[in-house]
Amino acid sequence: MTKENNHIYETKYATFCEPPNEMALKSGEKLGPITLAYETYGELNKDRSNAVMIYHALTGDAHVAGYHQGDKKPGWWDIMVGPGKAFDTNKYFIICSNVLGGCKGTTGPSSINPETGKPYGLSFPFVTIEDMVAAQKLLMDHLGIKKLLCGAGGSMGGMQALRWSLDYPDHIHSVISIATNTRHSAQQIAFHEVARQAIMADPDWQNGEYYGKSVPARGLAISRMIGHITFMSEKSMEEKFGRKLVGKNRLGYDFSGDFEVENYLKYRGDSFVHRFDANSYLYLSKALDYFDIAEDGKLTDAFKKARSSFLIISFSSDWLYPSHQSKELVRALKANDIDVSDIEISNSYGHDAFLVEVEGLSDIITHFLKKSQKSMSHE
Amino acid sequence: MTKENNHIYETKYATFCEPPNEMALKSGEKLGPITLAYETYGELNKDRSNAVMIYHALTGDAHVAGYHQGDKKPGWWDIMVGPGKAFDTNKYFIICSNVLGGCKGTTGPSSINPETGKPYGLSFPFVTIEDMVAAQKLLMDHLGIKKLLCGAGGSMGGMQALRWSLDYPDHIHSVISIATNTRHSAQQIAFHEVARQAIMADPDWQNGEYYGKSVPARGLAISRMIGHITFMSEKSMEEKFGRKLVGKNRLGYDFSGDFEVENYLKYRGDSFVHRFDANSYLYLSKALDYFDIAEDGKLTDAFKKARSSFLIISFSSDWLYPSHQSKELVRALKANDIDVSDIEISNSYGHDAFLVEVEGLSDIITHFLKKSQKSMSHE
Repeated sequence: MTKENNHIYETKYATFCEPPNEMALKSGEKLGPITLAYETYGELNKDRSNAVMIYHALTGDAHVAGYHQGDKKPGWWDIMVGPGKAFDTNKYFIICSNVLGGCKGTTGPSSINPETGKPYGLSFPFVTIEDMVAAQKLLMDHLGIKKLLCGAGGSMGGMQALRWSLDYPDHIHSVISIATNTRHSAQQIAFHEVARQAIMADPDWQNGEYYGKSVPARGLAISRMIGHITFMSEKSMEEKFGRKLVGKNRLGYDFSGDFEVENYLKYRGDSFVHRFDANSYLYLSKALDYFDIAEDGKLTDAFKKARSSFLIISFSSDWLYPSHQSKELVRALKANDIDVSDIEISNSYGHDAFLVEVEGLSDIITHFLKKSQKSMSHE
Repeated sequence: MTKENNHIYETKYATFCEPPNEMALKSGEKLGPITLAYETYGELNKDRSNAVMIYHALTGDAHVAGYHQGDKKPGWWDIMVGPGKAFDTNKYFIICSNVLGGCKGTTGPSSINPETGKPYGLSFPFVTIEDMVAAQKLLMDHLGIKKLLCGAGGSMGGMQALRWSLDYPDHIHSVISIATNTRHSAQQIAFHEVARQAIMADPDWQNGEYYGKSVPARGLAISRMIGHITFMSEKSMEEKFGRKLVGKNRLGYDFSGDFEVENYLKYRGDSFVHRFDANSYLYLSKALDYFDIAEDGKLTDAFKKARSSFLIISFSSDWLYPSHQSKELVRALKANDIDVSDIEISNSYGHDAFLVEVEGLSDIITHFLKKSQKSMSHE
């Protein structure tokens, strides 16, 4: 799994919903064909009972761990996925696919619309977390897996995990949901709307028809800068940057950026432009904003259908998806007599905590998966 | 003071630092002439001992209370300033001026540079909180006031109050500093930098030379949207908006804005464009970011010069200028044996709390001013 053992991974593709069998989306629109980019790690066991699906966050992709040919950095959750790691590829068959609406190989607004021969752009239909999950279910069927041992993810990935437990209760044995919530709050919607406005204000955005021309780089970079502030905690920003000046030991009295934190955000914003599609950011942020497990009804009622066991993890310093939202979820699960383990991990990393080496996180997941495997074998 | 008693206020102007007597700014540059827009309320008493200077926040102005001719709304702190109110105009002579670098009558980047006959734009020199305060001292001298009974403000206004206590310790008897801190943190700088990038990314910004042409309306609106999120608390946003939909009872599945919170932010952003200058936003946000009372030294040492008594107020739900920053200030004051009263007020309004009718705030200020007046009369 590590570069040392020379295992090189490749993204695979599967295509579904060829017309006239398009997928009926939640919005009422139809979409097809749908190609899913996915990767798998480890081996599926004989009775196909060791499959774990990992769901990525807003800007993630199918490449969750290990190296692709020529890669300098491993996949986005390599600290958690691999031989002997929390998601142990010696024990589990790991699947991760790029979400519907994304830009990393799965059909999204930058894909070619076969009807026109041009990229969809804004003619791409709106996708929701429900639609992403429905596409993943097609992949699961394609791989010949009847029931997932576990579905796991953080942030938007956690929402997909929750959605799985309600949309396919007989096909998912356990759920790990990290740093997420059950419905996007007003503040979360607000941050996304500002990010969208920044993209759409960029004259290069051209109402989404920028493919083959200049991309809306400045707008997308600004939206990412906003995102990064919300991913870190006030404390982690203070510890990492404080008021450190960059490349000079005095204030510049100009607008070029005096502080390291300014340059860090600009760097993260600019590099994001090279790896992500602005229209996908619009669509996926909207899918997050539309996410509401209870559909404005009672959360307790929403989880009546759930039959999985749950592990709900939150972080004390995460102010984007604060712990109190996870606790509300835990209460709703417990009210339905659902087997739920929950933990709030204390650290200063903010929302980013699920992507970094956080003390305890790995052990908690290892233990939960072991317990899940045991209880699934007794079914 | 209220519209009922038909008192109509007017902004007054005073000009200082005519060349060759320009003001030496902290950056090393010089600026002159400097016009200050200011208003006064109430009467200066015989021994000129009842003057209270109020300092406004980033986007405020000199018009703190009462009505101008034709106004539908009173000044920005009318709930606190007026006859019988906390800053009681029957007792105190209230002064408020627009800050240096602003766009409400005081010299700033939108002012005409007398040397060129054109607006300064980015040729306007950088101003700091120290420079703002130095200009206010000129106004105080002009009004014939030797010592302020009190200097008071929230947010950027609170910084000016603190700066006064150090730069003119013999000329200010007491300080009220609300929802502020002693130096801008990495997170605070980060939010400002994103706002600045949004303005500078707008093609209408034209490197600051947009006067007489289209203003960078979209960029400025986006920067204001970001600001508004930071002014409210997660809870107050949830209480006010939650996931309420606007003008329709179903999701739109488009990017026009489904949620009330989105439309509120866009409305606030768009209306801000009509009342504020984008270049002033750049300069003043930078002045805030540069603010550091201790200049990277020890905070305790910084307040050695202070001789005023202090009232430090923070709000439990203010995450932009969180209470723990105020507590750090209070500790530094107490370490210098300074007379300091401090209170953290619990409510859900976030940073905006100092601008709304918050229970207790008015009484605390009334009492502190009364005490200040008593102790000043014994000097």
